[in-house]
Amino acid sequence: MKCFINYPSDSDFSIHNIPFGVCVFNKEFIACATRIGDIIIDLATLFDLGYFEDIKGFEENVFEGYTINEFIELGKPITNKVRERIQQLLLEDSLLSKDERALEECFYNLDEIQMMMPLHIPNYTDFYSSIQHATNVGMMFRDPANALLSNWKHLPVGYHGRASSIVLSGIDITRPCGQIKPADSDKPIFSASKQLDFELEMAFVVNKNTDLGERISIAETEDTIFGMMIFNDWSARDIQSWEYVPLGPFLGKNFGSSISPWIVTLEALQPFKTESPKQEPEVLDYLKFEGNKNYDINLQVYLKPENSEDNLISESNYKFMYWNMCQQLAHHTVNGCNVEVGDVYASGTISGESEKSYGSMLELTWRGTKPLQLKNGIERKFIEDGDTITMKAWSEKDGIRVGFGEVSGKILPAILQ
Amino acid sequence: MKCFINYPSDSDFSIHNIPFGVCVFNKEFIACATRIGDIIIDLATLFDLGYFEDIKGFEENVFEGYTINEFIELGKPITNKVRERIQQLLLEDSLLSKDERALEECFYNLDEIQMMMPLHIPNYTDFYSSIQHATNVGMMFRDPANALLSNWKHLPVGYHGRASSIVLSGIDITRPCGQIKPADSDKPIFSASKQLDFELEMAFVVNKNTDLGERISIAETEDTIFGMMIFNDWSARDIQSWEYVPLGPFLGKNFGSSISPWIVTLEALQPFKTESPKQEPEVLDYLKFEGNKNYDINLQVYLKPENSEDNLISESNYKFMYWNMCQQLAHHTVNGCNVEVGDVYASGTISGESEKSYGSMLELTWRGTKPLQLKNGIERKFIEDGDTITMKAWSEKDGIRVGFGEVSGKILPAILQ
Repeated sequence: MKCFINYPSDSDFSIHNIPFGVCVFNKEFIACATRIGDIIIDLATLFDLGYFEDIKGFEENVFEGYTINEFIELGKPITNKVRERIQQLLLEDSLLSKDERALEECFYNLDEIQMMMPLHIPNYTDFYSSIQHATNVGMMFRDPANALLSNWKHLPVGYHGRASSIVLSGIDITRPCGQIKPADSDKPIFSASKQLDFELEMAFVVNKNTDLGERISIAETEDTIFGMMIFNDWSARDIQSWEYVPLGPFLGKNFGSSISPWIVTLEALQPFKTESPKQEPEVLDYLKFEGNKNYDINLQVYLKPENSEDNLISESNYKFMYWNMCQQLAHHTVNGCNVEVGDVYASGTISGESEKSYGSMLELTWRGTKPLQLKNGIERKFIEDGDTITMKAWSEKDGIRVGFGEVSGKILPAILQ
Repeated sequence: MKCFINYPSDSDFSIHNIPFGVCVFNKEFIACATRIGDIIIDLATLFDLGYFEDIKGFEENVFEGYTINEFIELGKPITNKVRERIQQLLLEDSLLSKDERALEECFYNLDEIQMMMPLHIPNYTDFYSSIQHATNVGMMFRDPANALLSNWKHLPVGYHGRASSIVLSGIDITRPCGQIKPADSDKPIFSASKQLDFELEMAFVVNKNTDLGERISIAETEDTIFGMMIFNDWSARDIQSWEYVPLGPFLGKNFGSSISPWIVTLEALQPFKTESPKQEPEVLDYLKFEGNKNYDINLQVYLKPENSEDNLISESNYKFMYWNMCQQLAHHTVNGCNVEVGDVYASGTISGESEKSYGSMLELTWRGTKPLQLKNGIERKFIEDGDTITMKAWSEKDGIRVGFGEVSGKILPAILQ
């Protein structure tokens, strides 16, 4: 597929991608958008120019909305057609390539737009589906000989997170304060977190509302998952370890999570489907799936101290996930829990087997016992004030590249009050 | 205060109450409402008739909305004035009492209306703040000698629940299915829950949006809590006990929670303020409060098997809460977690010291070992299909009664598929 817009061969936003997001254009108006190379396309105006008017069920200009929720709620039969139409319109010698008015009115350079939060997120769940991450955490905090708890291989363990505090890439995160129990005391103190961490995750978003009591069978899950994004589940380990028994993580997590701005469709990721780790023991019937449900997505984490350089501190891959998205969603709804358009479901930290592929500072520094050695003689056990964490994700195969761009966030000093 | 509407002395909806809800009137239109005795008042039409027009900041008819979110977002200086105005209008010889058009157009009998979900709930958190409940659960599932975990008396333990599956009183709940590990096996089976339970809780709703990073100090909490409702946190104990380590309850809870339809304001509950249990050890500064922050609210739970009678199975009181609402909200935001208008924060199961005051079947039957003996020779360890659970809550003092009505829900048989 030859596109009439030029972009470098290592662009995440190739003709094979066509992701969806929301932008402020010229500081003037907000609309849904897609991206090709470094060009941003205003889809609301493209709609007004009639480029989608023959697509049945797509009569209303939902691209005028401030989120992509209304668009994705149309369902895959329509959203896939729209995405394929955009792809065709971007090919050499297309109608669009010769429509000077459309190019003038719909095409923007990166410096003419600002990204917005693409979704309204009614509910957010975080899973815990990387076997290496769960094993590492179990070894550190519980029993090295029995790192995985007995339920872990039977169900994709997950918990409800806080939807309100999910923010867009680029938003600064203030270091949280809270109760921390010093090792040498049996009483907690009030303090800024001293063990601030990231968690390298991917997340998916669903495109429909179900009724309470309704299940999404594993066969139906791929039609329900619109697309994916990169997810940084910021974590305060010292707050978390004191508060989390017996009901799970709470203030150690809900001070902020960051997402990347472009939602990459499951269809764009289709060429990168791959096998999952073998599941042994065999799972219950409602979790059994056919074919490949995992994806080969390269993941990187960078840490940039203030006034220093970026350091690549982790290289992982989404394909390490033991539980796949289809299993997560089938499990989440097997009890009749209803889902809503825009719900976000995160993977949990994605760690591989090698020490360089661990998806958190907790694991990379083994709870602070092996500090990371960074450029310019800088050392890190956990994240310091002024540090920027950037995560990148992309798939590549047979010359085709589809990527997510990045999710980035800087840590501001705590406000102790 | 003598009201021109007659109601029995044991009505929850006295002139001292003036709660807020949302109704369908005559199956024709939806509006915010209040209730006096058994009369429902359409507040949107009352607004149109000019009864609030001198209240500054209350120029828009937010009562026309399908939820009370817009109204409560106006903040207490305005919502308190509106509530007091309604109270004045309901007094004998008021302007309203002589306005035949208004009485005709705004006043409805119970059989002319249907209650609606009063809130859009962006986020939902469940606390675990009754010391007797936490002790009972700790004794059953962990160590009877050390029933309370070491953090319990230092912070109000809580976790994020699922907002999507909160439903209005009267909506049936389908018995959930899921993974259950039989005691005599190390592998789970897929089954309908056999240990379905209720949890007797109260919940509060907040009236403002805060920024990420912002705290609500304990002194500000009462201005932020609009009001309260009864909350039934349905629970599947067998699903919960297998899944909940290490990240907390998930599918054992998110198949449904039920709320009562009328939101009772904190101001209506003012006369019933009472002392809390003494907190020992002393709490950290951000959790210290002045004056009484607890409320004397009588709580009852009834179980009605299908084709049998109602049985009063628990009598508890909200005043047993170790952690109060102000502490819960100050704790929830001490790390900068943002809150949103309509957020619901539930208390956790409210159990007293006596066995008859326990707020769940789990505790009342001591995990099924002491079945409840009901009328007509019926016995219960947990909730059976066709059972209806009804919870009531009211305060009473010096001849003043302010109540919540009830939250009720019937259990339908599981759909095994």
